Amino acid sequence: MKDPILFHFDFSSPYGYLASEKIEALARRYDRSVDWRPILLGVVFRQTGAAPLTQIPLKGDYARRDMLRSARFHDIANFRFPSKFPIATQAPARMVLWTKRNDPPRTAAVVHALYRAFFAEDHDISDPEIAADAVARIGLDRATLRAAVDDPALKDALRHACEEATAAGVFGSPYIVVDGEPFWGLDRLDQVERWLATDGF
Amino acid sequence: MKDPILFHFDFSSPYGYLASEKIEALARRYDRSVDWRPILLGVVFRQTGAAPLTQIPLKGDYARRDMLRSARFHDIANFRFPSKFPIATQAPARMVLWTKRNDPPRTAAVVHALYRAFFAEDHDISDPEIAADAVARIGLDRATLRAAVDDPALKDALRHACEEATAAGVFGSPYIVVDGEPFWGLDRLDQVERWLATDGF
Repeated sequence: MKDPILFHFDFSSPYGYLASEKIEALARRYDRSVDWRPILLGVVFRQTGAAPLTQIPLKGDYARRDMLRSARFHDIANFRFPSKFPIATQAPARMVLWTKRNDPPRTAAVVHALYRAFFAEDHDISDPEIAADAVARIGLDRATLRAAVDDPALKDALRHACEEATAAGVFGSPYIVVDGEPFWGLDRLDQVERWLATDGF
Repeated sequence: MKDPILFHFDFSSPYGYLASEKIEALARRYDRSVDWRPILLGVVFRQTGAAPLTQIPLKGDYARRDMLRSARFHDIANFRFPSKFPIATQAPARMVLWTKRNDPPRTAAVVHALYRAFFAEDHDISDPEIAADAVARIGLDRATLRAAVDDPALKDALRHACEEATAAGVFGSPYIVVDGEPFWGLDRLDQVERWLATDGF
């Protein structure tokens, strides 16, 4: 099997959510796995001076419309714009890092459970209790995952992941890397697919 | 024939150039024409606080790579990143406005001549003399077009076009409107096409 596709994302990123619903099927078609890499865009934005898209004049109004339309375009029927947005995403990010360390085969399921809780069910997963509820529903141990949010080792791991991502040039979500080639945004999935199909173009 | 597709663009926008090379064929497939609408992104950016993409840390390096890859993806072989970038675009924008008023059937040809001069031939079309050379090569009267750059009526028209665009929510390039539905970016051409094919989705 070839190298995994690196999928960097923030749990507060709508386009990250939409791409997370498409990337596995795409990867599978080309015999690839997905390496899920939660990051905190707030940390990255300190480098680039960017602001959350929906808070920018003009662009913000367009972005909300485009997110809903892009969900329809990509047949992701369950997308709803959350009532609280953006949110802090340390809690769900640390839960993913816990899973990668302790129960790696369930990583994708944990990402989907948390992302869908926020973008399909409007649950505020910035709250560790609510995030823990989401992963408990798919069968993980609630108390263990709730404790992971406050684990200093996982706090360190997330900080390190953000530093590593920024050092590698990651500045947005989703930010996808295939064999060293970076692709930013849901709207690059078509180029990701051609890259996988042709080994670069 | 249905309403034209509104194509807002800045002559200094690489993704605007790439989209300008695709939009007419797309429009034709759905029995549409293109209404070419040059704007000045500098004026718009004052509203949104945006900066030229290539000047943003991290994002700038990615953007240059993505522009070249996107040109290959869309089979636009002649794209070169200009040696001087970004540039002021009053001169070519006013030439387009002159053409829309005085020789409307040639508008598309003038847009392409100017855009290709900058993004395929690396000619600095911010210079009115160089822009006039570009349109003279496709048979327009050089002196007339050169004079258009300094015509107070066309200066007013461009100012008005920018105000109108900003009031309508335009914040980037290309910014395409189909029957009132806005699409921002080269990477929305796929959604534009589906919108045209299905009368909205």
